[in-house]
Amino acid sequence: MSKPDFSPACPAPAGDGGTVQLAHGGGGRAMERLLDTVIRPAFDNAQLARRHDGAVLDLNGPIAFTTDSYVVKPLFFPGGDIGSLAVNGTVNDIAMCGARATHLSVGLILEEGLPLDDLRRVVASMRKAADAVGVQLVTGDTKVVDHGKADGLFINTAGLGPVVARSPIGPAEVRNGDAIIVSGDIGRHGIAVMAAREGFGFETVIESDCAALGDPALALVEAGIAVHCLRDMTRGGLASAAVEIAETAGVAMALDEAAIPVREDVRAACEVLGLDPLHVANEGRFVAFVAAGDAKRAIEILRGFAVSAGAAQIGAVTESPAGQVASRGVLGVSRVVDMLSGEQLPRIC
Amino acid sequence: MSKPDFSPACPAPAGDGGTVQLAHGGGGRAMERLLDTVIRPAFDNAQLARRHDGAVLDLNGPIAFTTDSYVVKPLFFPGGDIGSLAVNGTVNDIAMCGARATHLSVGLILEEGLPLDDLRRVVASMRKAADAVGVQLVTGDTKVVDHGKADGLFINTAGLGPVVARSPIGPAEVRNGDAIIVSGDIGRHGIAVMAAREGFGFETVIESDCAALGDPALALVEAGIAVHCLRDMTRGGLASAAVEIAETAGVAMALDEAAIPVREDVRAACEVLGLDPLHVANEGRFVAFVAAGDAKRAIEILRGFAVSAGAAQIGAVTESPAGQVASRGVLGVSRVVDMLSGEQLPRIC
Repeated sequence: MSKPDFSPACPAPAGDGGTVQLAHGGGGRAMERLLDTVIRPAFDNAQLARRHDGAVLDLNGPIAFTTDSYVVKPLFFPGGDIGSLAVNGTVNDIAMCGARATHLSVGLILEEGLPLDDLRRVVASMRKAADAVGVQLVTGDTKVVDHGKADGLFINTAGLGPVVARSPIGPAEVRNGDAIIVSGDIGRHGIAVMAAREGFGFETVIESDCAALGDPALALVEAGIAVHCLRDMTRGGLASAAVEIAETAGVAMALDEAAIPVREDVRAACEVLGLDPLHVANEGRFVAFVAAGDAKRAIEILRGFAVSAGAAQIGAVTESPAGQVASRGVLGVSRVVDMLSGEQLPRIC
Repeated sequence: MSKPDFSPACPAPAGDGGTVQLAHGGGGRAMERLLDTVIRPAFDNAQLARRHDGAVLDLNGPIAFTTDSYVVKPLFFPGGDIGSLAVNGTVNDIAMCGARATHLSVGLILEEGLPLDDLRRVVASMRKAADAVGVQLVTGDTKVVDHGKADGLFINTAGLGPVVARSPIGPAEVRNGDAIIVSGDIGRHGIAVMAAREGFGFETVIESDCAALGDPALALVEAGIAVHCLRDMTRGGLASAAVEIAETAGVAMALDEAAIPVREDVRAACEVLGLDPLHVANEGRFVAFVAAGDAKRAIEILRGFAVSAGAAQIGAVTESPAGQVASRGVLGVSRVVDMLSGEQLPRIC
């Protein structure tokens, strides 16, 4: 409804098996009931039980702090859902800072009419993903917007965690000669979501790679590898991550197309859809820039984790032209790689 | 558009004075341009300039951590807008933890077609509100959803800051005999937003009370007042805040209706709209529960700040029945106050 109802006795919102109602966002009794029956039981911890305006944490700096909103469509897709994505995505951003995520906030924007069973499934998935990596969902917020003014459910998570790395990790640290390593095959998440949304019937079901990356990323740091930059390859894919880092660091990059792991089914799907796998989103893959001398050991360490068993060096950082990423194809011809430029892959995370 | 466009050469999104396009959320070149021309210039700080996945902060615990999403409709209203609301609202939640906000994250969910000038106005307002209280917007995320799948612009902010209070502040600390103090007149924000949305022509323009509350709230703490709980009275108003705290603490509360400050124009608007001022949202008002012996001094301290110049004691905590809030009217008759129960006031923050 677009006009508020001023009648003093609005009907109570539906209960079990019902749908989200505007009153669930009003800050009153209906919201309390939604929080008590759906949200708090799913996240259940001492901080939330205090029912205060925020959590109080005993963290000691340096601390990594990040946020992402999740608007993926559809909410559920092979290999994941918006809930696991919202936990793993933010955990991964913290890991890319050389830090271990310990606490998340959760902001839910619900559309009036969303089945409560969908909401239950999403928050259960968030809890499961959080438990798997030992992070706590300690503070949150729930808003409801009228039917037609959102698309089921949007989630924001912000994350915190102590920095493990002892030297800075970031785009500005990347230097000439660094090895460029990806943690596994690329392009699965984007294709999985596109296929689920558009109902493409590929021969095999391609599952999202959605996963937490803290363990392999921090294993590099803890082993003393000279890690200069880490970046999870989400929206815009490997290409956009590489170009942004090259531009920020003022370096060039030379990629070897034959060395970039892409599964055959993903490659075939990309061909059908006219997509470059280098532009397709991942949610469980990262690229690491490490000192050349540490490359072999870094790959060995990554291959010790299931989530990064397919790690491979795919190129190296070069000096110039600054900001340019080139990829040498299997026929030996180099092409310039740019960021994703259009809108081929909306609502992918 | 609901179907992705696979054409290799999508037109570039509109620039200055244009609108948000789906490509602005794709993680590629168009998003970089939006960030470079609109977002980063507005927030401009060293953390964002690193272009990394998160900020690294030197904070030492205990640290308060909170989040809120903002879906207010309309985006601009007398006395504020979704941008100032998104900064002040989260700064206030941190203040209610007895902490001073130092860093915010910003998650933007933009609807395709949003005028870029509206976005510029909102991020400028965020920056202004952040500067006014000395908080930095250090990490962020921008998503775009297709036209019709959001309502202009939603914002999530998460906030961090060191705890100033040396004893715990929260609902569980409230005890029998505590004085209940509000920091000023109630109900303005809700009425301002409703009037702007529905085009009500009241005699005077009622402006939102949207403001940051860190200074007066922390002045109480720093002066050694025995502050047991602080709560900003947003969605659901004073009534919902009081009832939630009474239920959590297992205490009762007796309010004196005549002592609750409500401006005459707000009271008149509530009568026309059939609203109880105790249920109407505020965005620059809080309720403090302090030891009875400190009440007078607490009010004096609050009255020293413009934002809380209208502070007044409105009642006291009593022993039983647990969870019940009663309000004695001007004729001496008490009524039981409950949380907001319907959906009279959707999309108020």
